[in-house]
Amino acid sequence: MTHPAVPTAATARRRVPARQGSLREHNLALVLRHVLDAAGATAPGAETPPSRADVATATGLTRGAVSALVDLLIGARLVDELPPVVTARAGRPAVPLVPARGTVVGLGAEVNVDYIGVRALDLAGQVLAHRETAGDYRHSDPAAVLALLAGLVGQVRADLPASARVAGMCLALPGLVDRVTGPLRLAPNLGWRDVDVVALLTAHPEVDGLPVRLANEANLAARAEARAGAAGQSFLYVSGEVGIGAAVVLDGEVFAGRHGWSGELGHTVVDQQGPRCTCGARGCLEQYAGKDALLRAAGRDVEEPVEALLAAVAAGDERAARALRSAGEALGVALANFVNLVDVETVVLGGIYAPLAPWLTDAVTAQLRSRVLASAWAQARVGVAAGGPHAAMTGAAVVVLRAVADDPAAWLGAPAGA
Amino acid sequence: MTHPAVPTAATARRRVPARQGSLREHNLALVLRHVLDAAGATAPGAETPPSRADVATATGLTRGAVSALVDLLIGARLVDELPPVVTARAGRPAVPLVPARGTVVGLGAEVNVDYIGVRALDLAGQVLAHRETAGDYRHSDPAAVLALLAGLVGQVRADLPASARVAGMCLALPGLVDRVTGPLRLAPNLGWRDVDVVALLTAHPEVDGLPVRLANEANLAARAEARAGAAGQSFLYVSGEVGIGAAVVLDGEVFAGRHGWSGELGHTVVDQQGPRCTCGARGCLEQYAGKDALLRAAGRDVEEPVEALLAAVAAGDERAARALRSAGEALGVALANFVNLVDVETVVLGGIYAPLAPWLTDAVTAQLRSRVLASAWAQARVGVAAGGPHAAMTGAAVVVLRAVADDPAAWLGAPAGA
Repeated sequence: MTHPAVPTAATARRRVPARQGSLREHNLALVLRHVLDAAGATAPGAETPPSRADVATATGLTRGAVSALVDLLIGARLVDELPPVVTARAGRPAVPLVPARGTVVGLGAEVNVDYIGVRALDLAGQVLAHRETAGDYRHSDPAAVLALLAGLVGQVRADLPASARVAGMCLALPGLVDRVTGPLRLAPNLGWRDVDVVALLTAHPEVDGLPVRLANEANLAARAEARAGAAGQSFLYVSGEVGIGAAVVLDGEVFAGRHGWSGELGHTVVDQQGPRCTCGARGCLEQYAGKDALLRAAGRDVEEPVEALLAAVAAGDERAARALRSAGEALGVALANFVNLVDVETVVLGGIYAPLAPWLTDAVTAQLRSRVLASAWAQARVGVAAGGPHAAMTGAAVVVLRAVADDPAAWLGAPAGA
Repeated sequence: MTHPAVPTAATARRRVPARQGSLREHNLALVLRHVLDAAGATAPGAETPPSRADVATATGLTRGAVSALVDLLIGARLVDELPPVVTARAGRPAVPLVPARGTVVGLGAEVNVDYIGVRALDLAGQVLAHRETAGDYRHSDPAAVLALLAGLVGQVRADLPASARVAGMCLALPGLVDRVTGPLRLAPNLGWRDVDVVALLTAHPEVDGLPVRLANEANLAARAEARAGAAGQSFLYVSGEVGIGAAVVLDGEVFAGRHGWSGELGHTVVDQQGPRCTCGARGCLEQYAGKDALLRAAGRDVEEPVEALLAAVAAGDERAARALRSAGEALGVALANFVNLVDVETVVLGGIYAPLAPWLTDAVTAQLRSRVLASAWAQARVGVAAGGPHAAMTGAAVVVLRAVADDPAAWLGAPAGA
């Protein structure tokens, strides 16, 4: 059974016929992937860095073949050697292999309703540069917002060390994105509809020449969460912002759905006669538990950051506490529907729900307990996202780096410089 | 990415180490599967029956190897030859290969809230025998109901031709079933909880000695629908009975979820303050669109068959028409939630919803149009199940036959007789 996940270079490449040298390319990718996975850079891992002999054992390739491939990867500055370690076994000391730092870089960007940002990650998973700007992008002009974003891309690239080479960029958007690099279909809170985001973005010199792909922000944040590994490999990731996205992760891969439009939790119904939503329907979850709805119910201005709400509730503000309880109940009803339909073990609260979790979890858990048919046998666990703020940007950068890992041959003999 | 589907012998066998002769067994299964698939017996297909040469071309085995394997399959009465057909090509006339009729049989059984039944299918997909009994099994005693079912099994086995050999039995249940042959966890409308159904059933001489497995009725009905092929390979199957089950089919396989408990559509919420459900929660879809709720809203007795409601609405009964419209709206809200979360192209109405579809589809479609965020770009199609009444029994028999197809070696030299 194949599954539509956020596409990587590997899935795109499967459609082209095999050519001369493809076996070496395949083995090169196999060796690099092993080094990256052991470092936990693109997947949960963080084992002891492997030696050439360990890679040979794990991949089934000969030690001679592995050594030659590792030399190529070191030459391409995709892999580095650590100082040799004397082992208990006889023979030469083992040379641990790790992902190269500060060389190949993925740019993860995001346009959301109240911020835009760009983050640069290297193969070791280090954040080399990060820029973000708060703003109000409701009903915004796509061209103007993407011009601002291109400016941030330019600043991030200028912040990178001279050794860095940018492999590409992936942009997280709060809405329906076609699975390949089609147009953005709809981002209701931005007021964007059928926008050719890639064309608008690559028209700017800061982005021109970079491969750019788009994906849904919750799908990308879920990818960062899967890499962090705390939630296990199958979970529902909830991304609470002004809108509420979600992503279904099955065995470590994001299940994006037939068109790439899975996970629109914010537009599932809480009350059919409820308030009108930005999508045109009535009573969507977003109108009860989205950031704007939450701030309004707490008697605050919608442009305040979530920290203001946190400070209020910590100071004993009863209205803020009530607003959070009632948002947690609505969220719990929607999540119970999801768990009844899809049977996952864990629900991960991300975005603004991560810092707010202490005031939401009880209400969410109570709804899951009373509404999920199977809860007497296996209560779904409610966890807090480990991916940190703006995890979608991290997930977007990881998508770019996974494409590098799938095709390292493209980096043999590539010139240096960002 | 692996996916928990309804388990087959193939998934169970992967866990045992390969042994001598396993290559021949593998190739035997490959050849049989090709003949069965071409006949559409276990998967959508129905092509021209293949000859030995066609099987060789399709499987990559030599003609000599295929001929020897086909002879074994014919000897085991799993495959039959049709009269030779003269082709346009030079050489000997081709002998079409088809699944054997009336030899190996799978029993598909079902216990539901208002009927129980057993159906026997052969490898060609023919129904050789069928028995069912209407009854009221709400809050029933599992031992008593399963004794009745064992009686039906005995009648069906007596109805089979002398040439038939029963490979096993699969039982469809309206509730939470663990993925392997664990106990039934919960069937709310039967009032069954943590029942060891297999032990109760195999205690009867009519069933003793047969391999018995359990599965959720909607998952099995969806499997029959996938085999019928009309809905494509990815869809949500809705099984409307007294309870409302559903099954997510992705690329032709049922996605059963982490524990096997996916698809509890009937317990997703329509109105949090709505009437109390058999599961203990309030406002579940079942209370608006389940068979009992529908008959009550139409002013009829809950023990009437769905045909009575159909006759009433056809005769212009306005109350019946209103009841159907309002059930369709509730169903549409729940389905819109599902499509927002999972992004499938097609929703298939099965069970009592199949004959009622002309009175439900407009209301369902209207809710999908107004509530699914992506509906402006790809409106989910609402289809009617092609699997016929009690499709779960057919799906259950197909599960047994797929296990035979996965391990034909077990049938070489098996004795005849049911």
